[in-house]
Amino acid sequence: MSIESLRTIFEEADGVVILDQTLLPHRRVHRRLATLHEAARAIRDMQVRGAPLIGVTAAYGVALAIAEDPGDEALESACAALAASRPTAINLNWALARMKARLMPLPPHSRRAAAWAEARAIAAQDVAANRAIGRHGLALIERIAAAKGRPVHVMTHCNAGALATAGWGTALAPVYAAKQAGIGVHVFVSETRPRNQGLLSAWELAEAGVPHTLIADNAAGHLMRRGEVDLVLVGADRIAANGDAANKIGTYLKALAAKDNGIPFHVAAPASTIDWNSASGADIPIEERCGGEVRSVGGLDEHGAIARIDLVGGETPVANPAFDVTPARLVTGIVCERGLAAPQALRGLFPERQ
Amino acid sequence: MSIESLRTIFEEADGVVILDQTLLPHRRVHRRLATLHEAARAIRDMQVRGAPLIGVTAAYGVALAIAEDPGDEALESACAALAASRPTAINLNWALARMKARLMPLPPHSRRAAAWAEARAIAAQDVAANRAIGRHGLALIERIAAAKGRPVHVMTHCNAGALATAGWGTALAPVYAAKQAGIGVHVFVSETRPRNQGLLSAWELAEAGVPHTLIADNAAGHLMRRGEVDLVLVGADRIAANGDAANKIGTYLKALAAKDNGIPFHVAAPASTIDWNSASGADIPIEERCGGEVRSVGGLDEHGAIARIDLVGGETPVANPAFDVTPARLVTGIVCERGLAAPQALRGLFPERQ
Repeated sequence: MSIESLRTIFEEADGVVILDQTLLPHRRVHRRLATLHEAARAIRDMQVRGAPLIGVTAAYGVALAIAEDPGDEALESACAALAASRPTAINLNWALARMKARLMPLPPHSRRAAAWAEARAIAAQDVAANRAIGRHGLALIERIAAAKGRPVHVMTHCNAGALATAGWGTALAPVYAAKQAGIGVHVFVSETRPRNQGLLSAWELAEAGVPHTLIADNAAGHLMRRGEVDLVLVGADRIAANGDAANKIGTYLKALAAKDNGIPFHVAAPASTIDWNSASGADIPIEERCGGEVRSVGGLDEHGAIARIDLVGGETPVANPAFDVTPARLVTGIVCERGLAAPQALRGLFPERQ
Repeated sequence: MSIESLRTIFEEADGVVILDQTLLPHRRVHRRLATLHEAARAIRDMQVRGAPLIGVTAAYGVALAIAEDPGDEALESACAALAASRPTAINLNWALARMKARLMPLPPHSRRAAAWAEARAIAAQDVAANRAIGRHGLALIERIAAAKGRPVHVMTHCNAGALATAGWGTALAPVYAAKQAGIGVHVFVSETRPRNQGLLSAWELAEAGVPHTLIADNAAGHLMRRGEVDLVLVGADRIAANGDAANKIGTYLKALAAKDNGIPFHVAAPASTIDWNSASGADIPIEERCGGEVRSVGGLDEHGAIARIDLVGGETPVANPAFDVTPARLVTGIVCERGLAAPQALRGLFPERQ
């Protein structure tokens, strides 16, 4: 399979179809979302995940809601329900604000077609942004490949790949661009407990034919110290105006290890991930998820059936923050569709905001 | 249960009985080791684990071998077999060297009783060392408790508790000493993928009535940044002469986060963990374990039976280093039975080596 043919979300007969990521890498199951409620649940239960894909799904969720009731009140309440589904990814709020800005001025009877068109435009814009991120990030990989004369060893975290977006991915977009350009690249993938989205990265890299190695999250620092990593590329769920970046829990530890070993650490995300209203990472709400995610884990049992096993009993106290904030001082660069900038110079890519 | 009554290894009727830690926290099963082969396998398969307990088990393994054949050749080959069972923990080599030094000068017919006595002495010395570590480490906790006027939040990694030793633990010995002294203490326990020895820590802390919270390994940095950790206490599998410390994979990441947040980071281990022949961490061999540990995970299935599930297929490439090295510059202090010293001043605790 090429990475282009991996479809995380698409329209079909007045509905939306998603690839259910809670069943990956074990089963490739598509699910039809027919209502606002189903769209919000798909986001909350992480059938779709990844900040950009959450944004696209929320946009389609608004379109589904409008199909049921195109009135002002219904539109407001649909946006509120979707906004409450996950708190950290700002792309969700961005997509909802854009849908509202497009639809509210229209008379209710004109909103239905406009909502589908706008959701489709948000998805297409995501793909285009990710292709641009791929081109800008490719330059980083090319430079290392030229200097070292061997395949480039990239480390990533969680899944900021095609599965996290409407196409191509953010952190993995430069990896796919390198593969297309014939540059050797190898990716270290951390499993990313507790939800193991690293397994999604391993799955899509395998589908795309990109060499990769799965590691426990704990192994990242050791590999960096041993000189096995040339470049760290991660995504983001929200980037503050000062360049602090919230991303999947554990990203901060990788950033520390990269800094300690002189390895460039880049955050790749579309402009819709930047929250200019958050002055710093301290303003970003961090989602605390259910302790059951830590107490148990899912996979395939000995019969090849999908199963969960308990690691500890339900009485064990658990803390389960889903994201952490990597301070800008640990970030070498932020790659978005406008280009690459040091976090302190991020605003320079957005002259309209200066 | 008090932590004193938790017996990881004990003698019984010309044999040795261990608590099989591969079945914890789910089942409390004791296994009798009757032969050298069984002792070596118990170490290799991690039925016993933790550097100090590996040393004690190896000593008993020599006693079992001597019972079969007390000759020089058998003794040498028993030590070689045990030494090959795990490469990183230096306590293994230390215990074997001590057994050899005690037994080799004796005529073979006198070795049997001496071997049991020496193994017993090594176990007793481990318990005494850990109690001393507890006393020295308690001072750290007392100081924080006095300054903050509330329970002290300790973070640990892996299991360097009673289960990792012949009694009391190393990193957790100060925690148990604090509990005995009536000082409030709360422990953050990382699950410690891929082998999840953090679940052993959670289990023994629950048994001892010490408040604790289980977290994914990825969450450690976030909690430290959020000011929720006062002190990091970890064990070690080998400490180089310069204070570099090899410990369970992921320790280095915690040390980086502690440094970044001004949190004291202490390594607790008996003197037998110090390898004066390793000038620095670069001299410490790092065990690479089987990829299946990362590809799958064990726990309890829905029927309460012990089961493993596969996270990914066997074709997924995996790297699985079992330890990493925390450089001395990130270590605030090393606590051993002689006292507490900055890593650079470690030799000062051992005037006989100066």
